[in-house]
Amino acid sequence: MTVAHPGLTVWFTGLSGSGKSTLSLAVHEQLCATGYRVQLLDGDEVRLFLSRDLGFSKQDRDENIRRIGYVAELLSKNGVITLVSAISPYRSARDAVRARIPNFLEVYVNAPVEECERRDVKGLYKRARAGEIKSFTGVSDPYEPPQGPELECRTDLETVPQSIERVIDAILVRVG
Amino acid sequence: MTVAHPGLTVWFTGLSGSGKSTLSLAVHEQLCATGYRVQLLDGDEVRLFLSRDLGFSKQDRDENIRRIGYVAELLSKNGVITLVSAISPYRSARDAVRARIPNFLEVYVNAPVEECERRDVKGLYKRARAGEIKSFTGVSDPYEPPQGPELECRTDLETVPQSIERVIDAILVRVG
Repeated sequence: MTVAHPGLTVWFTGLSGSGKSTLSLAVHEQLCATGYRVQLLDGDEVRLFLSRDLGFSKQDRDENIRRIGYVAELLSKNGVITLVSAISPYRSARDAVRARIPNFLEVYVNAPVEECERRDVKGLYKRARAGEIKSFTGVSDPYEPPQGPELECRTDLETVPQSIERVIDAILVRVG
Repeated sequence: MTVAHPGLTVWFTGLSGSGKSTLSLAVHEQLCATGYRVQLLDGDEVRLFLSRDLGFSKQDRDENIRRIGYVAELLSKNGVITLVSAISPYRSARDAVRARIPNFLEVYVNAPVEECERRDVKGLYKRARAGEIKSFTGVSDPYEPPQGPELECRTDLETVPQSIERVIDAILVRVG
């Protein structure tokens, strides 16, 4: 059964290792199980399809976010709850997407960089510190935190189930 | 009111001036009026959002079609009738999209190149003949016709309303 509802874009932004994937995957699973039309756009995966030509300069990152934003816009205007999980480090790029999507919910997945580095799930911080990865957000590249996110999940202070519940609640308020 | 239905990608391929835009716009309008969830992806417009980096070499055209195909796949798997209007001159690129989308309907919008050139709605053939546009499909670049399209509209032999009706009928068979 599918639930009829308006579309929405939920944009998870935060450092590598902050918990974006964990959170967005769990939210996706719960909403699917309830019968919502929901699509997860993972930044790394979308890059493979839409942005093979792009690197990690500010210009390329912004272009990548612009493309993901376009896809999220198309999906959410067609009634899909679209979850985007992407570091999206630059505020202006995120705000440009927000400006185009009427129903937009920014979730700042926030943990101190020291905590993200301690987790280092993918071993990327270690490689960044060793200089093997250039332009690594939080180490050698900037991250500009949202100034007015609809939701902030301090994943170092709250449990994963707590974060999931808060995101789901915020979504349900929007889509009814 | 929105009609519940499975998603579908309707892919209009054909020369510049063959009637893809006319046809896809009219089909879009009729389906919207009936309450279907429908999204039109126009090749030229999508280029502005997803493929500003790409030109008109075979490689770039194929990459452009690959990106449009990815977006069409996401939309149609989420229950949207997605109309793609793009010259998409290379068979292998179209077939690669078809292979990824379960509910796929290829519409070959076909008029002889002489007829398309006679229409020359956008004045592009004139510019191509004058050498102002390089790699122009049908003039200086190949067009590979579909070998097994679900539908062929000979826009030089049938009227626009006839073509529209045949496309709509084919869509309704698929989405019920």
